[in-house]
Amino acid sequence: MVQRLDARDASFPKDFAALLSAKREVSEDVDQAVRAIIEDVAVRGDEALIDYTYRFDGLALQPETLRISDEEIDAAEAQCSKETLEALALAKERIEVFHRAQRPQDSQTTDALGVTLGWRWTAIESVGLYVPGGRASYPSSVLMNAVPAKVAGVPRIAMVVPTPRGETNPLVLTAARLAGVDEVFRIGGAQAVAALAYGTETVKPVAKIVGPGNAYVAAAKRRVFGQVGIDMIAGPSEVLILADSHANPDWIAADLLAQAEHDPAAQSILITDNASLADAVEQAVARQLETLPKAEIAGASWRDFGAIILIDRLENAIPLVDRLAPEHLEIETENAEELAGRVRNAGSIFLGSHTPEAIGDYVGGPNHVLPTARSARFSSGLGVLDFMKRSSILKCDPAALRALGPAAIALGRAEGLEGHARSVAIRLNL
Amino acid sequence: MVQRLDARDASFPKDFAALLSAKREVSEDVDQAVRAIIEDVAVRGDEALIDYTYRFDGLALQPETLRISDEEIDAAEAQCSKETLEALALAKERIEVFHRAQRPQDSQTTDALGVTLGWRWTAIESVGLYVPGGRASYPSSVLMNAVPAKVAGVPRIAMVVPTPRGETNPLVLTAARLAGVDEVFRIGGAQAVAALAYGTETVKPVAKIVGPGNAYVAAAKRRVFGQVGIDMIAGPSEVLILADSHANPDWIAADLLAQAEHDPAAQSILITDNASLADAVEQAVARQLETLPKAEIAGASWRDFGAIILIDRLENAIPLVDRLAPEHLEIETENAEELAGRVRNAGSIFLGSHTPEAIGDYVGGPNHVLPTARSARFSSGLGVLDFMKRSSILKCDPAALRALGPAAIALGRAEGLEGHARSVAIRLNL
Repeated sequence: MVQRLDARDASFPKDFAALLSAKREVSEDVDQAVRAIIEDVAVRGDEALIDYTYRFDGLALQPETLRISDEEIDAAEAQCSKETLEALALAKERIEVFHRAQRPQDSQTTDALGVTLGWRWTAIESVGLYVPGGRASYPSSVLMNAVPAKVAGVPRIAMVVPTPRGETNPLVLTAARLAGVDEVFRIGGAQAVAALAYGTETVKPVAKIVGPGNAYVAAAKRRVFGQVGIDMIAGPSEVLILADSHANPDWIAADLLAQAEHDPAAQSILITDNASLADAVEQAVARQLETLPKAEIAGASWRDFGAIILIDRLENAIPLVDRLAPEHLEIETENAEELAGRVRNAGSIFLGSHTPEAIGDYVGGPNHVLPTARSARFSSGLGVLDFMKRSSILKCDPAALRALGPAAIALGRAEGLEGHARSVAIRLNL
Repeated sequence: MVQRLDARDASFPKDFAALLSAKREVSEDVDQAVRAIIEDVAVRGDEALIDYTYRFDGLALQPETLRISDEEIDAAEAQCSKETLEALALAKERIEVFHRAQRPQDSQTTDALGVTLGWRWTAIESVGLYVPGGRASYPSSVLMNAVPAKVAGVPRIAMVVPTPRGETNPLVLTAARLAGVDEVFRIGGAQAVAALAYGTETVKPVAKIVGPGNAYVAAAKRRVFGQVGIDMIAGPSEVLILADSHANPDWIAADLLAQAEHDPAAQSILITDNASLADAVEQAVARQLETLPKAEIAGASWRDFGAIILIDRLENAIPLVDRLAPEHLEIETENAEELAGRVRNAGSIFLGSHTPEAIGDYVGGPNHVLPTARSARFSSGLGVLDFMKRSSILKCDPAALRALGPAAIALGRAEGLEGHARSVAIRLNL
């Protein structure tokens, strides 16, 4: 039985707050182990990397086999079906076009005082891309991380992917080549993050590390932050569907389950103003679960974290949406655009009945790396800006310095920073 | 004696690497203490906040005196000199104009397949601004943090500032009002960060916390990250000056010392192709130090972390600049613009001899909150985008779904996510 909430119940504020604060992940305390691994790789380099790969992935490597060769990637590509390769190529093309529009503009102007000011965007010099092995090893995620980096102009992308007992995922390697990844290493875990952050004899260090991983990888990324940049720490996936009587309950059920099949800790929520739709969706989920290959995972997610929330009027859903700040928001209502325009917090919005979230996972164009666990309140999905940085530019001519200087001197002195004041005054003979 | 490096020496690569990796900050291990404070404030709210403020700031408060009243801010403003108020107003105006140009564009297009896609930027709903007490309590930093947030459209900015034994900084309060800060609380340390992240009876929680602080504040920000967003963790300030024979050694010395007076751990570096300029600057620094009020701090910084690097040709400075990735880069050479165009990694660039960095600290317009400790390799100074987030938008009509659906189905199945494939197939009767 999925959890049902009703906005007309007296207990609703409390029920909704409980839904918001439900812990979906047990945070493993792996910090001590991760710290030791990172220090060891920083000191011993390749040797440590090879030791940990043997211990955790059951794979015996040499420095010269850490990197996956071009021939191996050729062989991987040959294993993929034509249909899948074409789908991957379409996805890559659409992601690239979408992200190209995100490239930022430089700016430079000279104001009335003669001050020239603006900024210049530059690409990050090198990026490390973590790709998980096993269950969460998705070629689509390789594209979603690497394509924006290439669009940004990152000259070097180094990918790491664990290959337990030597097993590689041919589609992941093929996606890496398609996206323009420059180097691929068969390493994973905290040791791979350490190698990317500090460098070893074989793995040159990068300036920023992106990509999802397990608790060890997440802890390692937190720990190397500062030494290198990192992206957000991804949590279990979520969808929130807002639907009215016009929506098709079977389609909605399919979307709720597509999210739920990712992870027992995933979360699928329906908000509707229509009680019979709510009932029909609940029945459709039960029916579709019967034949879903990942029914065990999806069923657990739906049972433990799923919810159907009944509200009296659609507009009243907006504050709930903003508090949930979902990673994915589907709006399947008559006035979808209008409602979407009133939402503040959502990672990605899918409009209308013909836009299942899975389109966005693969071939829509927008990025599928999105803020989870309510972090859409303060952060955005991955994009080109995550692979660039801005340098501000300032130039005063002598007249501009005369105009601005006295105020800078006054503020420097007010802050007790006489050296600041003097660095201006000395140029003005003050 | 300041450290001197010469690019023509055989030992230069090693010497430069040592300069790059010099630890300027001892990282205090305050994590256990911070964790306890945060948990306590999250549970006990105002009561805990009041206890810690009594213990750490020697100040006895009630829930109703946690907030600094409008009358107190009126009184603070009345204490400021007219000259300082005018300088502050000029700074605010210029910061606002500069940041307005950073407001991002929304985008929405419909492509040839009938897919509507784009994104919408929205302001973060509430922001907490940490302002340190004591030595690093700068009204200019209040403006640099709060003005971009207001330009972004943040509806609520809550500021926290410790007032040890009740001492407030009138200019800080005045700057807060000028910048449009909505609420000011007289709390600081990890307890203030906890209050902003989790909320108490009196302090409503925020979605993101920005602003510099000591080791406790930095550790608290790291710990609440995820619950709320945070900005970068600021390290000691830095300047790198690139100069040729055209530069004035006295002016350069003044700029090096303006940086050094911030903190014994600040770093001032000169790179030049001119040996006599190098000597003249070194002498000028020694001379100016004799009368500088903060000579003790600036002298320690210059002695312990300052450096003069002699190179044979100016172009050869660019790779060194990029490796140092300075927070502030001054280029005082004949071809300053041309050299600046070749730099990849710098937080902020100051061009020509009439642009001392102190202008940028106060009244230039660009933000003075900038990446330190080589993090300009992967991050930018504070700006409007730090107070906004992007929701991507996707809409397929039935024809667009028919065009894209098969590829999404193929990729879903290739990834073993049959539920994803079915959520598309069910809409296409496939």
